[in-house]
Amino acid sequence: MESSFEHLWSDSIKKMKKSVIRELLKLTQKDEIISFAGGLPDPKLFPIEEIKECTIGVLDKYGPKALQYGTTEGDMRLRGHLVNRYRKLEGLDISEDNLIITTASQQGLDLTGRIFLNPGDVVFCGLPSYLGGINAFASYGAELVGIDLDSNGMSSIILRNEVAKAVSNGKRAKFIYIVPDFQNPAGITMDEKRRREILDIAYEFNIPIIEDTPYREVRFNGEPQPMFQKLDTRGMVITLGTFSKVLAPGFRIGWVIGHERWIEKYVTGKQIADLCSSSLIQMTIAEYFERDLYDKNLKLIIEKYREKRDAMLASLEKYMPEGVSWTSPDGGLFLFLYMPENIDSEKLFLNAIEKNVAFVVGNAFYCNNAGRNTMRLNFSFATLDENVEGIKRLSESIKEFL
Amino acid sequence: MESSFEHLWSDSIKKMKKSVIRELLKLTQKDEIISFAGGLPDPKLFPIEEIKECTIGVLDKYGPKALQYGTTEGDMRLRGHLVNRYRKLEGLDISEDNLIITTASQQGLDLTGRIFLNPGDVVFCGLPSYLGGINAFASYGAELVGIDLDSNGMSSIILRNEVAKAVSNGKRAKFIYIVPDFQNPAGITMDEKRRREILDIAYEFNIPIIEDTPYREVRFNGEPQPMFQKLDTRGMVITLGTFSKVLAPGFRIGWVIGHERWIEKYVTGKQIADLCSSSLIQMTIAEYFERDLYDKNLKLIIEKYREKRDAMLASLEKYMPEGVSWTSPDGGLFLFLYMPENIDSEKLFLNAIEKNVAFVVGNAFYCNNAGRNTMRLNFSFATLDENVEGIKRLSESIKEFL
Repeated sequence: MESSFEHLWSDSIKKMKKSVIRELLKLTQKDEIISFAGGLPDPKLFPIEEIKECTIGVLDKYGPKALQYGTTEGDMRLRGHLVNRYRKLEGLDISEDNLIITTASQQGLDLTGRIFLNPGDVVFCGLPSYLGGINAFASYGAELVGIDLDSNGMSSIILRNEVAKAVSNGKRAKFIYIVPDFQNPAGITMDEKRRREILDIAYEFNIPIIEDTPYREVRFNGEPQPMFQKLDTRGMVITLGTFSKVLAPGFRIGWVIGHERWIEKYVTGKQIADLCSSSLIQMTIAEYFERDLYDKNLKLIIEKYREKRDAMLASLEKYMPEGVSWTSPDGGLFLFLYMPENIDSEKLFLNAIEKNVAFVVGNAFYCNNAGRNTMRLNFSFATLDENVEGIKRLSESIKEFL
Repeated sequence: MESSFEHLWSDSIKKMKKSVIRELLKLTQKDEIISFAGGLPDPKLFPIEEIKECTIGVLDKYGPKALQYGTTEGDMRLRGHLVNRYRKLEGLDISEDNLIITTASQQGLDLTGRIFLNPGDVVFCGLPSYLGGINAFASYGAELVGIDLDSNGMSSIILRNEVAKAVSNGKRAKFIYIVPDFQNPAGITMDEKRRREILDIAYEFNIPIIEDTPYREVRFNGEPQPMFQKLDTRGMVITLGTFSKVLAPGFRIGWVIGHERWIEKYVTGKQIADLCSSSLIQMTIAEYFERDLYDKNLKLIIEKYREKRDAMLASLEKYMPEGVSWTSPDGGLFLFLYMPENIDSEKLFLNAIEKNVAFVVGNAFYCNNAGRNTMRLNFSFATLDENVEGIKRLSESIKEFL
C-alpha cells in the first residue's frame, strides 16, 4: 500500500503549480511546429566561437580560481564591467556594492519573494505580467493585485487606488513589480512621465519597485526611456537584469542592482539558495566584455530581431481578420494579440497545434484569470519565413473560431 | 531622513543569519594565513586542461543547445551518466526519472526546505551537523532538533525518542537530515547497522531521510557502507550529491535522487528558484564522463587528500597537548577537534589568526548552540607542509589557553 505523503508538503510547494507554459511547450516539441510559444533567443545568434575563445582564455589565465568557489556577491571583474556599463549608458550612480550576481533573473525574482513576502502580503503587478514573476511571488503566499495596462504600461491611477485600498484594509503592501521596457508579455514600454508617477506612489507608501529589465537593451526603434533606477532619488528601486536574452540563457547569469540595504538581503538569501553562481561562467562573461565583444553581438541581435518583428507585424497585417488587434513593440522578444471576446485561446491552441503553429495562452499572464481571448507571440526564435508562415496559419485558425 | 524598512522584510529573511563561516573567512584572506577553515578542494587538483578540452568539444558539437535554456530536470546525457554510475557502483535501482540536476547541493538543501517546511515543523539533524543544511532549514522557520553522534554517527536511540516526543507533542516531524559518509563537520561514517536502524525510524514515522553525500566517493581506507538510498525499500530516502568536492565547485552542479513522488516536487521548486541549471556546464560534465576522465581524477584526489589527512593526523599526534582529541576520518575533507571544556574556540580563533592559522569554530555546527570547545579542521585545501605547520601553530595557541 502506498502511504499518503500529504502531511509532509509545505504550504509553499502546495501553492506552486507546474508552469502552464512548460506543460504546453511539451506539445510544441514536434519538428514541424512553428513555435511562437517560448521566450527563447535565436540560437543561430549565439556567439559560439567567441565564447569558446573566452572560456579558453579564462581557463588558461585563471583556471584554479575559475573552478573554485566564488563569493556570494559574484565575480568582482564581472560586477565591475556591469557597473561601468550602467554608469556610462544609463547614468546610474552605482558601485560594485550595489550589484549582486544571480543565477539568472529567475533567481532574482525568487529571492525578491523570499526577502519580502509572508503569506497574505500584497504585490502589485501588471495585467498581464511576466509569468515567472507571478509564480515566484505566489509561491510565497502573496496576494497578487493586478493593475491594468494602457499604451504606456501599468496605470498609475489604478495602481495608486489599489495600493491605498490594500493599506487601508490593513494589508501589508510589499512591492510593485514592473517590466518597464518591451514588457513580457504585452510588448509595451512605459514612458518617463508614467515612471515618475509610479515612483511617487512607491515613495508615498514606502514600498520598493522591482524593475525587471531582461529586454531593455534589445531596442529596435524609438528613444530609450530612463530607467526607474536612474529616476529614483531615494533608493527605492531594485533592478533585475540578465544575460539570457542578449548573450546566452545557457549561462544562467543575471544580476540585481539597488541600494545596499536591499543588496545585503539578496546576498543573505543567495547564500541559502545556492551559495554562489559559477565562477567559470562569470569570468567567461567578464572576459567577453574585456574583449569588447558584447556590443558587437548586441547590435547583431537587435538587427535580426527587428527584421523578425517586422516580418511578423507585416504578416499579421496581411492575414489577420477584422476584430483581431496586437501590440507593436519597439523592442524585446514578444508581442501580444487580442481576439474577439468570445474566442478562448486555450481552445484555439489545440486547433493551432494541429496546424503546426504554437503560442502561449494569454490567460497565463493574468493573475486575475482574465485575458482568455489573448495570446503571447514570440518573434525571436523562429526564422523570418516561419514568422510569416506561422502567422498565416494562426489567422486561419482564428477565422475558424470567428 | 532615512525611513525604516523593517515592515518590508519577510519572516524568512529575518531568520537568516549571514553565515558565521563566511564572516570568519573574511579574516583568513591574508596570504600568510594557513587556512583549515573553508571546505575548499585543492585547486591544484582541478583538471583544467581536460575541462578545457571538454568545453571546446561541447561548444563545437552542440554549441546552440549548450547556450540555450535547458529543461528544469537537467541535461539528459548527464543524468544518464550519473544514473549509470549509481547503478553500477552503488547498486541503485533508479532511472533518469529519479534524478534532477540542481545548482550544486546547496540548492538541493534549500529546495528540501522549500518542499517540506512550514514554520514550526521539526527537522532532526546531527550534533554537530552541516551548517549549510542547518541554515537553509532554519530559514524556513523549522525547529531543529539536534541528535548526538557517537562513533557510528547519529544515535538511533536518541533519534527515535526525539521523533516520538515531537509527534506526541503534536508537532509536525518532517525529515531526518544526515551526512552519513565522512560527516561534515565530524568526519564520522555511519555503519550499515545504524543506517538500517534509522531507516526503520523513518518508516515507523513515515518521514523521509535526507542523505547528503558530498564526500562519499572520497574514501581513503575502509569498506564503503551501503547508501541509505540502496537500503531503502519504500522510497523514503532522498539523496543529495554534488560535483563540488570531486570535480569543481566553480561548476555549481549537484543532483537529487529519489522516488518520483519527491523528484516531481523538486522540479516544481526548481522552476521557481532558477528555471534550470547551465546547459553548457552540464554538457561539459557529461562530455567529461564520456571521455572516461572522471575516475582518473577521483583517484588522484583520493590519493592526495589521503596524504594530506595523514600529515595532519601525524602533526596532531606530535604537537597537541593532553586533553585534546580529534576524529580520524576514513575519507572526506574534514576532521573535528575537541578541546577541554573550558576553552572557547571563538576566543581561541582570534589568537590563532594572530599565529596565522584559521579554522571554523565548532559551535557553528551545533543547532543547540553547544560545542563551544570544538573546531572543524579542513585538510584538503592547504599543502602537506602547511597541514603540518598549521597544526603546530594551532597547538601553541591551544597551549596558551590551557
